[in-house]
Amino acid sequence: MESDDGEVVSNKQVIFKDYVPGILQESDMYITTATIKLKVPPDTKGVLVKNLYLSCDPYMRIRMRKVQGSYFARSCQESLLPITGRGVAKVVDSSHPDFKNDDLVWGMTGWEEYSLITATETLFKIHDRDVPPSCYLGILGMPGLTAYGGFYEICSPKKGEFVFVSAASGAVGHLVGQFAKLLGCYVVGSAGSKDKVDLLKNKFGFDDAFNYKEEPDLDAALKRYFPEGIDIYFENVGGKTLDAVLLNMRVHGRISVCGMISQYNLEQPEGVHNLMQLVVKRIRMEGFMVHDYYHLYSKYLEMVLPLMKEGKIVHLEHAAQGLESAPSALVGLFTGCNIGKQVIAVAYE
Amino acid sequence: MESDDGEVVSNKQVIFKDYVPGILQESDMYITTATIKLKVPPDTKGVLVKNLYLSCDPYMRIRMRKVQGSYFARSCQESLLPITGRGVAKVVDSSHPDFKNDDLVWGMTGWEEYSLITATETLFKIHDRDVPPSCYLGILGMPGLTAYGGFYEICSPKKGEFVFVSAASGAVGHLVGQFAKLLGCYVVGSAGSKDKVDLLKNKFGFDDAFNYKEEPDLDAALKRYFPEGIDIYFENVGGKTLDAVLLNMRVHGRISVCGMISQYNLEQPEGVHNLMQLVVKRIRMEGFMVHDYYHLYSKYLEMVLPLMKEGKIVHLEHAAQGLESAPSALVGLFTGCNIGKQVIAVAYE
Repeated sequence: MESDDGEVVSNKQVIFKDYVPGILQESDMYITTATIKLKVPPDTKGVLVKNLYLSCDPYMRIRMRKVQGSYFARSCQESLLPITGRGVAKVVDSSHPDFKNDDLVWGMTGWEEYSLITATETLFKIHDRDVPPSCYLGILGMPGLTAYGGFYEICSPKKGEFVFVSAASGAVGHLVGQFAKLLGCYVVGSAGSKDKVDLLKNKFGFDDAFNYKEEPDLDAALKRYFPEGIDIYFENVGGKTLDAVLLNMRVHGRISVCGMISQYNLEQPEGVHNLMQLVVKRIRMEGFMVHDYYHLYSKYLEMVLPLMKEGKIVHLEHAAQGLESAPSALVGLFTGCNIGKQVIAVAYE
Repeated sequence: MESDDGEVVSNKQVIFKDYVPGILQESDMYITTATIKLKVPPDTKGVLVKNLYLSCDPYMRIRMRKVQGSYFARSCQESLLPITGRGVAKVVDSSHPDFKNDDLVWGMTGWEEYSLITATETLFKIHDRDVPPSCYLGILGMPGLTAYGGFYEICSPKKGEFVFVSAASGAVGHLVGQFAKLLGCYVVGSAGSKDKVDLLKNKFGFDDAFNYKEEPDLDAALKRYFPEGIDIYFENVGGKTLDAVLLNMRVHGRISVCGMISQYNLEQPEGVHNLMQLVVKRIRMEGFMVHDYYHLYSKYLEMVLPLMKEGKIVHLEHAAQGLESAPSALVGLFTGCNIGKQVIAVAYE
């Protein structure tokens, strides 16, 4: 199997079959085994990496549907290449001056054992090896920066304000809640199980939390938890929750729209009816993407790494084992299986 | 009919009967005649005014329905007092040091011939008598300041940007379009008739305009008028138009939400389905009310009065004659009868 150009090894991959308009299922993906040469091809500038951890993120579901004006136009799925997503990986071979063998990196990679990455501008080298590398898929990576940018930059938060976070036990939500508590806000989260609600209150320090599945009237629930109304809503779910929140916002409230996970498995998104509240309460509702905040990444790390090491902020990870478990891990994001950041552990070194 | 305290005169009034959940009709109002003493009562600080012009504004429709969290909690309609709204009036008697007989004022008054106004903090004295006084219900009053605050403060407009205005021939819309043109934007408006579309293009200087009633596919229409997308949307209508606009916004676009007139006569507001575009395009959507911009009023007048006198900005008024015509004028706002600012001429001096 050896050649002058590097060893050829088998390379297990997760392939996505075709766009899914409705509910994403494990059967929309399959596992296959290809081969790969562990060497960057001649005349190519890039790195050959061994993937250690892969990330399951809600935005990946959007790539899996045909949507107008989407940022997912360049979809690898169309040519049956492995799913692309963020991962932590070890450099096995490099023709790029910024990366050398055995470097740890995080960034866009493939759902497979080994990947050739030529878009190296999306890779970050991991310098701090005191923390588990998979953290770079959560608190120290895209979800962390998402929580940071979406909360501090969009919400203009002030001490004492009333903050509501939906999908609060998710990769982004559980960090937003903790950032808001550190700032001195009053924070309530919603999640989909008793265990998650307990975690929010007992582990992540939310002032209160509730299980939205047990609330037949979300408007009434929000009135119970926010008798004085909501200043800041960190939107992760969309649909009925957004409609109920709009009725409970305070004057000059802010809604940071990070995602709408309740809608991604629907053929048609639900209608939101209470937008006139934007006028009545003079609300600012703003969508964002983490791409706009990468210039803040080193500033964010400077803030969060000490907090993390001092135990002032807690990070929760949900790890599935092996590439074979990747399809069910991704599907599970949309049925609430994960608590905290969902990753797939592919290899340990 | 005379007394020491002032003449008692008959006072025609327009009374609103009861909250209307669906379509507002003339029969929801009636005309009656009361009497009034043309003197501010003893121990009362206020002004007694003769109403000259009354204003028909879309927000008045919202006061006419029971809505949660509305800014219309203190509704005069409940006790069969005349409808309240903005007007231009002449002071007939005053016990307030800031106002004297024969002053012209604009602000909150009643739909009647004479009104006793004690909330004088909502009154502005009219100093510039070079312009028709009814302008203070349009370009020089609330709609003008609404257009100014909603466009300049919310939209952060820049020269060369693509601007779409709905209800563009309305009291606010036709001013927003002209402000945007003065700044060097490319401006397209939508309206509900050929005459209005012609006015937008030929009188108000919009780059283009279309009749939304002749566009079965609003998304396709917007793609035709904005092949490169929309940077700024000045939202006056809501519903299907908003949904179509969301699909055509550019990255980092702004939506200034002034009102949603297409929804005010519906028992349930329509659902808006495309809010995920806020994330995909990182759009800021912000509601506002003119109340938040009164501190800018004198600055606004300094800007707009010269433009108006030089003919660089055109103001259009639609005047109904007499209090008897008030109910149909108000109802007509929601069926598109008016072009420009709808007022009711009650008296000429």
